Amino acid sequence: MSIRDVAIVGTSMTKFGRSNKTELEMFAEAALDSIYNSDIEPKNIEELYLGNCAGAINEGQVNMCAHAAEEIGLHQIPSTTFEGACASSAVAFIHAYREVAAGYNDTVLVAGTERNMTLRPTGWATRVFQCSADQRYTQFTGLTFPGIFAMAANRYMKKYDISKEAGEEALACVSVKNHHNGALNPKAHLQKEITIDTVLQSPKVADPLKLYDCCPFSDGAAALVLTSAEKAKKLTDTPIYVAGVGQSSQGSLCTQSDITYPIGRAVSSKKAYKQAKIEPKDIDIAEVHDCFTSAEIIAIEALGLFERGHGWKAEKEGETAVDGKLPINTSGGLKAKGHPIGATGCAQIHEIVEQLRGDAGKRQVNKVEVGLADNMGGEFGTITTIILRR
Amino acid sequence: MSIRDVAIVGTSMTKFGRSNKTELEMFAEAALDSIYNSDIEPKNIEELYLGNCAGAINEGQVNMCAHAAEEIGLHQIPSTTFEGACASSAVAFIHAYREVAAGYNDTVLVAGTERNMTLRPTGWATRVFQCSADQRYTQFTGLTFPGIFAMAANRYMKKYDISKEAGEEALACVSVKNHHNGALNPKAHLQKEITIDTVLQSPKVADPLKLYDCCPFSDGAAALVLTSAEKAKKLTDTPIYVAGVGQSSQGSLCTQSDITYPIGRAVSSKKAYKQAKIEPKDIDIAEVHDCFTSAEIIAIEALGLFERGHGWKAEKEGETAVDGKLPINTSGGLKAKGHPIGATGCAQIHEIVEQLRGDAGKRQVNKVEVGLADNMGGEFGTITTIILRR
Repeated sequence: MSIRDVAIVGTSMTKFGRSNKTELEMFAEAALDSIYNSDIEPKNIEELYLGNCAGAINEGQVNMCAHAAEEIGLHQIPSTTFEGACASSAVAFIHAYREVAAGYNDTVLVAGTERNMTLRPTGWATRVFQCSADQRYTQFTGLTFPGIFAMAANRYMKKYDISKEAGEEALACVSVKNHHNGALNPKAHLQKEITIDTVLQSPKVADPLKLYDCCPFSDGAAALVLTSAEKAKKLTDTPIYVAGVGQSSQGSLCTQSDITYPIGRAVSSKKAYKQAKIEPKDIDIAEVHDCFTSAEIIAIEALGLFERGHGWKAEKEGETAVDGKLPINTSGGLKAKGHPIGATGCAQIHEIVEQLRGDAGKRQVNKVEVGLADNMGGEFGTITTIILRR
Repeated sequence: MSIRDVAIVGTSMTKFGRSNKTELEMFAEAALDSIYNSDIEPKNIEELYLGNCAGAINEGQVNMCAHAAEEIGLHQIPSTTFEGACASSAVAFIHAYREVAAGYNDTVLVAGTERNMTLRPTGWATRVFQCSADQRYTQFTGLTFPGIFAMAANRYMKKYDISKEAGEEALACVSVKNHHNGALNPKAHLQKEITIDTVLQSPKVADPLKLYDCCPFSDGAAALVLTSAEKAKKLTDTPIYVAGVGQSSQGSLCTQSDITYPIGRAVSSKKAYKQAKIEPKDIDIAEVHDCFTSAEIIAIEALGLFERGHGWKAEKEGETAVDGKLPINTSGGLKAKGHPIGATGCAQIHEIVEQLRGDAGKRQVNKVEVGLADNMGGEFGTITTIILRR
């Protein structure tokens, strides 16, 4: 098959955090801004790809896609909701990209929206997040996500013979870095610097993870306008091209052989590297799925960005900082930018686009040509890799 | 763009009705049977497209796509959940079709699964269904779906100057016909013949709709194997080709100008007719979205299969019967076959495939070359049209 080049020409996200808007209103805010900054006429948007995970539970709203299209005046266009837990809008992006690359549409809107914080007490959000684990084999054990990623952290330390003290300090370094980046990102949920002690002295959630090892529940939306490379060149001097995509799945935690190295993530990223005709060493920046500090270390190793068993050291030695060898989560990541689940996939891509365009302000990385967004839903269940280039 | 021909080579559905299985278990039953009867090796399935609407609410399960792939041994393949209310698996089918036609995959599995009946009392299912209407403008009024389709029936009778008596009798005719067809379908939820009096004397739900004007809540799953026409010819003597597809959206009920003629359905079907290079008169059979008897009459007119204002007469005069001029809902439709929302789209396609293959048993229609499946989610929010040919 022959597919054509596709570029991102519009991008936006709401400020993440606590919002008094509905999921559709947050969607509209990000969507209209992304269309506006793309210089595309709204009437030229041919299809909508929407990521949302828990609208049914949180707002009593399914079929959100139909209402979203009308909300911004895109009457009668095809509009679809994609759900893959925390990877919902990355999955939407992949299908949108493929369909534009194949020529079904020239210009489409991809977005994600989610409200996790408001409406209900915190225990409710924990229960909602747990729904993305297997209802038959994981949920009934009472294991929630802090527990899953605490298990992964413990297993990692055991496997690579890292002392608890050194391991917990490495995890804290991830949090300190991401909070530092978040403090430079005006859209981030948590914009405050912290120290290693802040993390180590915060309340324990699931040993060895403490409160500051965990991402917050956030409300927010993000949106992107995709078009053919040909049209993109007429619209902007800085089209950001989709170089490669990958998607993979894994079943319940109980069937996974090694949760410190999720095989689905290796499969997904290999597809994306192959399509982009690059290797991990060619990546200049990456946004990875740091729902917990341990998740970031696992992600950067499974993606092949750091050697297996060495991710924790790289974090400790500053290699993943904005001015490090390979900056990871310059946006602040899920840890500090926030994690409105259905919006996270598009928000990660938003950060990579801003960096590749040179629009990332105080957190801008020098000489960025190629960036990667890694999104993961559930207990490593749905995994996506999206590689962008200038 | 150039796309290649795509065919359905495997198809299956569970018996619809009350099930003691989970959504994943029902999915696996239909999926494995469709793969088995396609003669495809399971290892050749490259991607899974899953329709599900309310798994989050009914089973506390999101990210079902990941668990579904593993449940049938398709480790690490890309797997995505699509949600468009009652049109969820038809939307999944359209994206699957497009991606195989473009050449991203050769062979994929499309499925839908839903459990509406079990676990909770009936009032719960009514509330879940209502979630597909706009939470801001429709739900808060207390209007549930029987009310919406009762309004449509009343408006239709007023518009075309039909007496209440004649109108209610025409609605009853739809139900009698679909129950007749359902009684010939061993997979149908309700396999019993009824009379016009059964309908007219059943308890009123929302004037003029009575209990027997409404489809049941059902549990069930359906699955289809799609592959390139080239591969299909090697697998079967009766590949069923996808001739055209269309998808459209509409916003809240309050913004629709005429609910007796949903404009989104006209837009969607026109796209499908255009791609298939046919006109409505070329359709030999159709499965349409008869969640209520009034919905069937509205559907067959908006699809252009019957003249506007004449659908009710066609139903009364037997034109839509299995041996009529244009058989509608030979499966029994949502009314008698049942309506497990996420499964309905694939189940409609399953019936068209069976008819085109000549495998529909006692309800087989003579000389069927082209069939249409019309699926609708919410208050006319998500609409799909899928045209198949021998």
